[in-house]
Amino acid sequence: MPEYRKDPVVRRWVIIATERAKRPHDFTVPKEEAKGGFCPFDYGNEHTTPPEIFAFRPENTEPNSPGWWVRVVPNKFPAVNPDIEIEKYGHGMYDAMAGFGYHEVVVETPEHSSTFALYDDKQAEEVVWAYVKRFRQLREDKRLKYILIFKNHGALGGASLPHPHSQIIAIPSVPKRVLEELNGAKDYYDYKERCVFCDMISQEKIENRRIVEENEDFIAFAPYASRFPFEVWIAPKVHSHDFGKIEDSQVKTFAIILRNTLKRIYKVLDNPPYNFVIHTSPTYEEGKIYYHWHVEIMPRLTRVAGFEWGSGFYINPVPPEDAAKYLKNVEL
Amino acid sequence: MPEYRKDPVVRRWVIIATERAKRPHDFTVPKEEAKGGFCPFDYGNEHTTPPEIFAFRPENTEPNSPGWWVRVVPNKFPAVNPDIEIEKYGHGMYDAMAGFGYHEVVVETPEHSSTFALYDDKQAEEVVWAYVKRFRQLREDKRLKYILIFKNHGALGGASLPHPHSQIIAIPSVPKRVLEELNGAKDYYDYKERCVFCDMISQEKIENRRIVEENEDFIAFAPYASRFPFEVWIAPKVHSHDFGKIEDSQVKTFAIILRNTLKRIYKVLDNPPYNFVIHTSPTYEEGKIYYHWHVEIMPRLTRVAGFEWGSGFYINPVPPEDAAKYLKNVEL
Repeated sequence: MPEYRKDPVVRRWVIIATERAKRPHDFTVPKEEAKGGFCPFDYGNEHTTPPEIFAFRPENTEPNSPGWWVRVVPNKFPAVNPDIEIEKYGHGMYDAMAGFGYHEVVVETPEHSSTFALYDDKQAEEVVWAYVKRFRQLREDKRLKYILIFKNHGALGGASLPHPHSQIIAIPSVPKRVLEELNGAKDYYDYKERCVFCDMISQEKIENRRIVEENEDFIAFAPYASRFPFEVWIAPKVHSHDFGKIEDSQVKTFAIILRNTLKRIYKVLDNPPYNFVIHTSPTYEEGKIYYHWHVEIMPRLTRVAGFEWGSGFYINPVPPEDAAKYLKNVEL
Repeated sequence: MPEYRKDPVVRRWVIIATERAKRPHDFTVPKEEAKGGFCPFDYGNEHTTPPEIFAFRPENTEPNSPGWWVRVVPNKFPAVNPDIEIEKYGHGMYDAMAGFGYHEVVVETPEHSSTFALYDDKQAEEVVWAYVKRFRQLREDKRLKYILIFKNHGALGGASLPHPHSQIIAIPSVPKRVLEELNGAKDYYDYKERCVFCDMISQEKIENRRIVEENEDFIAFAPYASRFPFEVWIAPKVHSHDFGKIEDSQVKTFAIILRNTLKRIYKVLDNPPYNFVIHTSPTYEEGKIYYHWHVEIMPRLTRVAGFEWGSGFYINPVPPEDAAKYLKNVEL
């Protein structure tokens, strides 16, 4: 059974995911996945995944049959499990919790060799609709405190299958990094009575040196204190703490700026591995006035990222002003 | 000029290292370095590095000539610079600081193709002596608040040269991760009046399920809430907050357990890329009673590490109890 364990020093919860347990020989030096071969996310292989939670598909087609253009299924090797009771227990001085939660896969397209950067507007929009729909459904389970939507692209980005997909993990606790953001944003608000993200957005617009793209609803920019080369954040221009409350009209403008930003990264860095993570408020809606949902996109240019995540000390050889210039000037 | 920039939300300082500035085409998908070819760390090439700070070498040899067995030089492409004034300044809402600091390279051996895991006792001990000596010398510069000693092994671990080397970065601020450890350890001490690391060590000894190796002075164990597969921490068994205060006799026992642990990882995971970071108290000696220095070793098994460092949410498919069993049973 998967188990949450709490680091007794910094109090970070980690998941020991026994259902995905690995032996040493499973760890080879990462290389790009071999293309071709069997893929459970291709048309005709729907029966090889757990039954779909939902899919966007023509009305005349059966669930778990071809025809869909976006499909959401439970992760076959889930890090957490919805069928176990939430139970906290001690282990000597250590704290643990049963690994309750949901772990789902959003199969973004039937096109095995496509990638988010290359979707047309409609496909990108439908993928975001799948995120929004699941986010709103999962939120109904009041045992959950946080819903994490993210994408690992490329083997070096942590993707175990090359077929384009993203993941959703819904858990009964709030990740430490999110808590830090909430606390930091609250301190700023208490001091300034303004949202720190809203202030960042206004300063980015005034300076206009780190903006990658902007549309009526969203702005994409390389953050002033970027940890990673070509890191880009995308945020709504009007204050909103909750991804689940995105307006219908914004789903499209968000999908397009996300796709465009990924396409810029694809072109400038030759389809690098990357991760993106949607940062939003906990499901119980903390942070309404002081938090601001956004997406953080982190290309995985491993050669320069080093010991950083072990030390909390980041060295970035690419000034965000330069990264923004390269990304902004891409011919889309 | 390199510049520290502070994230306005979580208040993390990052370094924008302009001296190492990269263009997009510098970022290729990481692969192991080509062996052979010119290496600035080989005998005879001493003049191609900045002049050595010091070296362990026979008395009858000149500085910056062959004969040394460990050599410390300034990093040719430093992330920070010792020759600039510490100066803090604002940038609209953002905070920045001139990139003052020291960035040095410890060339661990003249043997181009060796690796820490394969050093004999003496060589490992001499490398650790180089760490200790520089730590104590750098601490004399009272402008510094923290000295980071770390190693990136393998291209996927962030090493830009295959010749065995570690790095030392000394900076005028304390990395966020270290502050979190200090605060967490202090909270625990305030509550329990005991050091949290000392308590962890006693519980590890009682349970004896996560211990990898132990000698008279040190213990190596897979932490209960390991973030990464085969993560191992090494800590002194007698409370000590300050790596710089390691006793002469402990330099050897520490060097040996570090080398042994790296050798176990080398054998079980077939020489994977890894990072290790020495976590110690700030140079101004905060944490004397409640902090405990230690080393964190993190194999870089990228295929499973994913979006974690972007979200603060870690999924580890290898229970530390299993990792310890594999590592412990290695024939050294």
